[in-house]
Amino acid sequence: MHDTLLLFGATGDLSQRYLFPSLQHLLRDRLLPPDFRVVAVGRSDYDDGGFQAWLRERLANGDSRDDTALEDLLRRTHYHALDLNDAEAMAATLSQYADRPSVSYLSTPPDLFAPATRGLKAAGLLEGESRLVLEKPIGHDLASAREINATLKAALDESRIFRIDHYLGKAPVQNLLALRFGNTLMEAVWHNRWIESVDILVAETAGVDGREGYYANYGALRDMVQNHMLQLLALIAMEPPSALDADSIRDEKRKVLRSLRPMTPADVGKHSVRGRYEAGVVDGEAVRGFKHDSEVETFVALRAHIDNWRWSGVPFRIVTGKRMPSRATEVVVSFKPVSHWVFERPSKERARSNRLRMRLQPEETIELGLMGSLAAPEWGATELQPMSLDLSMSPAPIRRIAYERLLIDALKGDQTLFVRDDEVEAAWHWIDSISDAWRQAQTPVQPYPAGSWGPPAAVDFLPATLFGNGHKKKAS
Amino acid sequence: MHDTLLLFGATGDLSQRYLFPSLQHLLRDRLLPPDFRVVAVGRSDYDDGGFQAWLRERLANGDSRDDTALEDLLRRTHYHALDLNDAEAMAATLSQYADRPSVSYLSTPPDLFAPATRGLKAAGLLEGESRLVLEKPIGHDLASAREINATLKAALDESRIFRIDHYLGKAPVQNLLALRFGNTLMEAVWHNRWIESVDILVAETAGVDGREGYYANYGALRDMVQNHMLQLLALIAMEPPSALDADSIRDEKRKVLRSLRPMTPADVGKHSVRGRYEAGVVDGEAVRGFKHDSEVETFVALRAHIDNWRWSGVPFRIVTGKRMPSRATEVVVSFKPVSHWVFERPSKERARSNRLRMRLQPEETIELGLMGSLAAPEWGATELQPMSLDLSMSPAPIRRIAYERLLIDALKGDQTLFVRDDEVEAAWHWIDSISDAWRQAQTPVQPYPAGSWGPPAAVDFLPATLFGNGHKKKAS
Repeated sequence: MHDTLLLFGATGDLSQRYLFPSLQHLLRDRLLPPDFRVVAVGRSDYDDGGFQAWLRERLANGDSRDDTALEDLLRRTHYHALDLNDAEAMAATLSQYADRPSVSYLSTPPDLFAPATRGLKAAGLLEGESRLVLEKPIGHDLASAREINATLKAALDESRIFRIDHYLGKAPVQNLLALRFGNTLMEAVWHNRWIESVDILVAETAGVDGREGYYANYGALRDMVQNHMLQLLALIAMEPPSALDADSIRDEKRKVLRSLRPMTPADVGKHSVRGRYEAGVVDGEAVRGFKHDSEVETFVALRAHIDNWRWSGVPFRIVTGKRMPSRATEVVVSFKPVSHWVFERPSKERARSNRLRMRLQPEETIELGLMGSLAAPEWGATELQPMSLDLSMSPAPIRRIAYERLLIDALKGDQTLFVRDDEVEAAWHWIDSISDAWRQAQTPVQPYPAGSWGPPAAVDFLPATLFGNGHKKKAS
Repeated sequence: MHDTLLLFGATGDLSQRYLFPSLQHLLRDRLLPPDFRVVAVGRSDYDDGGFQAWLRERLANGDSRDDTALEDLLRRTHYHALDLNDAEAMAATLSQYADRPSVSYLSTPPDLFAPATRGLKAAGLLEGESRLVLEKPIGHDLASAREINATLKAALDESRIFRIDHYLGKAPVQNLLALRFGNTLMEAVWHNRWIESVDILVAETAGVDGREGYYANYGALRDMVQNHMLQLLALIAMEPPSALDADSIRDEKRKVLRSLRPMTPADVGKHSVRGRYEAGVVDGEAVRGFKHDSEVETFVALRAHIDNWRWSGVPFRIVTGKRMPSRATEVVVSFKPVSHWVFERPSKERARSNRLRMRLQPEETIELGLMGSLAAPEWGATELQPMSLDLSMSPAPIRRIAYERLLIDALKGDQTLFVRDDEVEAAWHWIDSISDAWRQAQTPVQPYPAGSWGPPAAVDFLPATLFGNGHKKKAS
């Protein structure tokens, strides 16, 4: 395991909220090597002591207060103020850390990926076994993504490039793979003969607040669908890999992404809805609408089709939006109804089909919805009731930040949960087909009040679980 | 719902332990008609008051003590001492109850079925809509069962004959039907492509004690397998009926029983083990062996094959014995392993296949065994753990005696949970093939010490769940 982590964008939001707390937890649990050190790089003008003081203040009140681990982390942390466009300065300052193989983590805007890579190269930090970690987004469309990937490849081999999608570090995603590939009951039903549809929902209550400039260039489609949501789709839909190593899994994910049916101007009106929130009420609070000159959407609903043998005819509904009524990230795999309904109660119409529901937010759970019989006090007709079974295995108290897992994997060199260049490009290829179709068909961005589930036209895209059409939680 | 119940064998063990307590519960829960009455018939010489006093003493200390319901039951109960071989006396005494349609319940040895039926006929108690309920066993082999069925049919139509198998009244059996026919996940896997084997186990700690005379004529095969265990097998293996009405279900059960591959003298050594317990220790207590002149078995293990498209190649292992180490009645449906194992841990050898486990004793539960991932404190390899999900729906406090359901159904006239003549005969047909094969092959009855799981030769027939090869109960 490498023991040097260079963190670029060290004073940014992601570092404060997730990366440093993750390192603190990993130190507490003694999961990092003895000589582990952090080289924090930012634009603010601190010396080591100044940065440590700043960081102490931010971490000391965190959820996971642990003074020993915190002081241990601070003691291991050095800080340098650097402009990442200045390769010469980077080389001069950072080459001292090229004594050991390192992991450089670019938690920066994507337009700094190329210059920072040049600076790291100049500092000797991309040689040998050293690695590079990048945050999303990788570009803004297929062309820009290709450009970034080409720059990266010129500096180091793909086997040492780690593109983060933090959804892949979440426990329910690991659980999903375990369920899919560890269970005959799932193997038997995981295709279009038995699956009716798949819903992938990311609903945020937050608005664009403060990120207008970035957001106007991306919108919901590029900001959420291209990365997180297509990664979830790929894990659900991929063929079983022959092993769980990085390239076997990523080969399969890429195949799925390449099997996505491109959107055409003729279809895009039927299979997508764009929306933008106006003023409204969220969580009992009045909020402003999103105003911007661009025609960018804050809500998108898509019906994706995967043109292969396994998934032909099964719609994948992808919905994400800001300023929704509640925060929820979930994947729902809905199975077809049984072939013939033999029970009197509930009637066929009121029976619930089987359903696998994976929630990533606000809780991390996996539930299986089945029908069970109720030993009713008055008998007669056999009475069935929907029941919901909790499949989450992790004991409740151990809840980890997704980044903990991903940082460990990057230090170890395990690429399984990182995104490969060709996946990124396949995802952009499909996303570009949608934005092109929108432009050609002049698909309107429809208004919706903040605190609603998007424009009325999106109702057919929303998962039934949003509306209480659920399996009841089994009393235990 | 009929409101007159004639109970023959009213002072017997079954009546005291199950039938009267069931009636008490049903009265408590107001599930019986307003003019409900019980006509208790036995050999002991009581008047109404004497019988009521005797019954009060037996019920007053029961689990379900309820003075109001008990007194209500006693008030509705009349008693007559009668010899069931005396049709004339039966007619004279019981014809007074022929004023309303009734249900006559023969909780008597099978040799009384024919004479009692004649007496009931003479008393006018089998006319019109009146019904007849019989306890197992229906005969001793196919020939004697046919004889009993013929006698019954001469007296009343099959639609008014209710052969009890009380296993069918148990909640997990209802639950099994709900799971099988209410869930796509079960529809998809319920056949030989996905099911590896089925185990049906009835282990008793009790010995033959006090029933030597009866038992020597039956043995484990005829006493347990022919009825309870083959009924469980039929419910698991039957094709989905078009509806859950009595004849649709019973048509399907009969088809399964007729598809059982008859045992031949050539096969019987491979596919069966007979045993008889010797002295040993059960529950920390020394017990005597079973001594009898006959060659009767107190333990039997069978490997049954159902020769149809759904079950070809799937062994059904049937094991029952007396003086086992613990009391357990359970059905385990074991699914095949996944087609290819992609995980490092646990190794393929240590992974558990999916499993549906239905327990009838000592608890009534249904559990689904799956593999789930463990969010391990140290990551690296994806680690899987077996987990066990409780599918029992009935809220824990409502536990009902199986006879409650069956008594209500008989009073209502619902035959769904009762056994039809042709089912009984198909079961005997297969059972006779085994006893014939044993006789021709001179299959030995092997000794086993009381408190063991039968003769050593039976080890391959025992379900893995007996030996802790289980899915761990999910903490909830």
